Amino acid sequence: MNHDDILFGILGNAFHCPVLGEFEFLENVLITINTDGEIDSLLKPDEYAVSDIMEVLERENRLVRLKEKQYLIPGLIDLHCHAPQWPQMGKGLDLPLYNWLANYTFPLEAKYQDLEFAKRVYDDLVQSTLSSGTTSAVYFSSIHLEPTRVLADTCLEKGQRAFVGKVCMDDVEQCPDYYRQSVEKSLYETEAFHQYVSTMSGNHGLISSVVTPRFIPSCTEGLLKELGQFATNNNCYVQTHCSESDWAREYSQQKYGETDISVYEKTGLLGRKTILAHSIFLTEQDVIKIQDYGASIAHCPLSNMYFANAAMETRELLNRGLHCGLGSDVAASVTPSMLRSCFDAVTHSRVREEGTSTKLAAGERGEAKTRISFLEAFWMATTGGGKALDKNIGVFRRGFSFDAVLVDANIQDCDLKIWQALDSASDILEKIISTTNRQNIIKVWVQGREVVCKQ
Amino acid sequence: MNHDDILFGILGNAFHCPVLGEFEFLENVLITINTDGEIDSLLKPDEYAVSDIMEVLERENRLVRLKEKQYLIPGLIDLHCHAPQWPQMGKGLDLPLYNWLANYTFPLEAKYQDLEFAKRVYDDLVQSTLSSGTTSAVYFSSIHLEPTRVLADTCLEKGQRAFVGKVCMDDVEQCPDYYRQSVEKSLYETEAFHQYVSTMSGNHGLISSVVTPRFIPSCTEGLLKELGQFATNNNCYVQTHCSESDWAREYSQQKYGETDISVYEKTGLLGRKTILAHSIFLTEQDVIKIQDYGASIAHCPLSNMYFANAAMETRELLNRGLHCGLGSDVAASVTPSMLRSCFDAVTHSRVREEGTSTKLAAGERGEAKTRISFLEAFWMATTGGGKALDKNIGVFRRGFSFDAVLVDANIQDCDLKIWQALDSASDILEKIISTTNRQNIIKVWVQGREVVCKQ
Ligand SMILES: [Zn+2]
Ligand SMILES: [Zn+2]
Repeated sequence: MNHDDILFGILGNAFHCPVLGEFEFLENVLITINTDGEIDSLLKPDEYAVSDIMEVLERENRLVRLKEKQYLIPGLIDLHCHAPQWPQMGKGLDLPLYNWLANYTFPLEAKYQDLEFAKRVYDDLVQSTLSSGTTSAVYFSSIHLEPTRVLADTCLEKGQRAFVGKVCMDDVEQCPDYYRQSVEKSLYETEAFHQYVSTMSGNHGLISSVVTPRFIPSCTEGLLKELGQFATNNNCYVQTHCSESDWAREYSQQKYGETDISVYEKTGLLGRKTILAHSIFLTEQDVIKIQDYGASIAHCPLSNMYFANAAMETRELLNRGLHCGLGSDVAASVTPSMLRSCFDAVTHSRVREEGTSTKLAAGERGEAKTRISFLEAFWMATTGGGKALDKNIGVFRRGFSFDAVLVDANIQDCDLKIWQALDSASDILEKIISTTNRQNIIKVWVQGREVVCKQ
Repeated sequence: MNHDDILFGILGNAFHCPVLGEFEFLENVLITINTDGEIDSLLKPDEYAVSDIMEVLERENRLVRLKEKQYLIPGLIDLHCHAPQWPQMGKGLDLPLYNWLANYTFPLEAKYQDLEFAKRVYDDLVQSTLSSGTTSAVYFSSIHLEPTRVLADTCLEKGQRAFVGKVCMDDVEQCPDYYRQSVEKSLYETEAFHQYVSTMSGNHGLISSVVTPRFIPSCTEGLLKELGQFATNNNCYVQTHCSESDWAREYSQQKYGETDISVYEKTGLLGRKTILAHSIFLTEQDVIKIQDYGASIAHCPLSNMYFANAAMETRELLNRGLHCGLGSDVAASVTPSMLRSCFDAVTHSRVREEGTSTKLAAGERGEAKTRISFLEAFWMATTGGGKALDKNIGVFRRGFSFDAVLVDANIQDCDLKIWQALDSASDILEKIISTTNRQNIIKVWVQGREVVCKQ
């Protein structure tokens, strides 16, 4: 091993979930990170020659030693976040989706042509998501090119791995006059943004552009086809909403006589790099197509509980091995925390399994055997998100990017409490998933770069 | 007005919900607190003679002026919290209730005979609940007298309004050998604790004792009768669990051929000062009895989503005007925050209303019109909790105790963000309910005493 290639090392306890439903506790592990920001090795301090490396790193002040009750977890991955809705987070959840969009979202998203406003909001958003442990985020921006550039610039500057899309919407009946673009303009700005990202100085693969038709109702078929062709020609990421609610499903049936997935397939928008938010009302054919194309689902549980009219069939889709990660769906959420999303995913699956009506007998209530576990939810927020994005992230493995979060259970005014004599490794991981507050996250690294340090 | 009676004043913006489903925004209000810790007056600064009072208070350093984006809300009321389960919070939620009790809870609760351990845990618990804005808490302790005294002492010392009960459980079949007491010992220690609380020095009504049979399955009928008689004779608070799950309901039917409520009624445990946790599976007769006796329900939504097998009929019970507040049900919870309980209450009601199964048509899914609103949830955590406890707390009103929480939306590393140009008073209150982190709670008062100050 060449010590010059090592940027720094971290020594302590780490958790990750390489396999769905299981966890590995890496006790007292030394992780070394190379100058490319990748994991160079995972070593046991008592292995041959490791003390030598540690000595060098320590002498040169390149060794981070975790304290008791500090734990390293993989960087969290948010597959679905509406950046311009950040100021809206925590309000309007009482509204039906249609009114939410018309009364709150569209007027707000239109404001981002004011680039100073955009800069102010996006600074706060990216700082907040990073500070909550989100090392990779897939963002819907607004429909305008300039503020979308501001978002990409902000992510690059702050060091977040980001997948950013300028939103496209052109349907005259579904989009307000003040907030839509023609097919030509949508396409032109999508191309211009793609070009911008690929030539950003200092962007060594940290920021990617994403082709972003909002959802079926807001786009004409012409727009979808143009975007599909562009995505195919340029091997782009695609993100959109898929069969989110009764209304959205009905809309596609009425307009096309088909499901969202069929429409996306026919317009060239379904591929290995497609992220489908929600995906609640899927037919068997839809599921087969998603799997055949290798597309991915961004499961947004809290949003589902408020807006989807039903629960995602998470249990079944995980069993079938579909690519499936988690999304916050800010602002249909009350926090950017992906650990909260993990918890909400478990909660919604539990309510789905148990049912709600006391008027039914126990056996008739709910949908049997549909719960997911905390470990499965955590897998989705890390390993699953990495698979969805087709990136080497989400687990601690040689050659993978070092995207990591340091959780500190010693912070006083927080809910995360570890009682050494009472808590097993499994207990500790469940507590981290369930009770971590933002203040417990004291350091965050993306591609080996320290992007958050609260101490 | 006699200025000498005024302990201090607070000037700023406040929210409260005196009426179910509505809110009042008290903009730029001056609240004065008298030497008994009660609200002496709510004044508008431009009212006659008010500037005079403010001048005096300011000169004598007895005026707290709230800054921009700081808001006063009533102290939060937790009607159901298991104090000894504090170290268990955030683990074991994957287990069925029976295993949760047998594997985690009972062994843990038995440890509190070690009074040093009890002191260490209860210090942290009471500090945490206060720090999360809980000014009044109704606690189950463990089955032993001494650690229950430690809990009461801790609450008094830290200044939390607390309703504390030594847990009673004697059924040989349902309770492990190492964690049960005889009827005689249960009763003796219940009396001794009641006596202790009524003679605690410095306890001017802040701490109350509560007769606490754990739940039907863990108590013999003999124990229930003795406790019922003691509660009736001494006009005590009573707390217990009521029809929490399929298993609990079935147990009472098998053993008594009756519902939990019938059993509590017949054993003298149902009264105006009875707090019934959960109350999921109620018959029409049960509801009528609860209302006739003026007893109260502690609704614990997160716990219900994991352990109750169904949802509480919150919408219907609120419509009928039953006394109904919220409980954290720590450790069947992942935070002591009652604002989180508010949010979870809304969420569970939304899932109940919408349903989960995509295999059903929209009209057949869920239970129509059963949602509750954020304002109704907040009412339960404040006004409703006050009514349940029959205390003058939960709203800002002359003669009521000054139990209050100062929420500061200026804290950097938090989710609560107010955007002055975008957020109405109604938006701000929803954001406070939905997104407040513990760090946003910077001051807490109970009975006029400042018990938390983070700045
Ligand atoms: Zn979305
Ligand atoms: Zn309980």
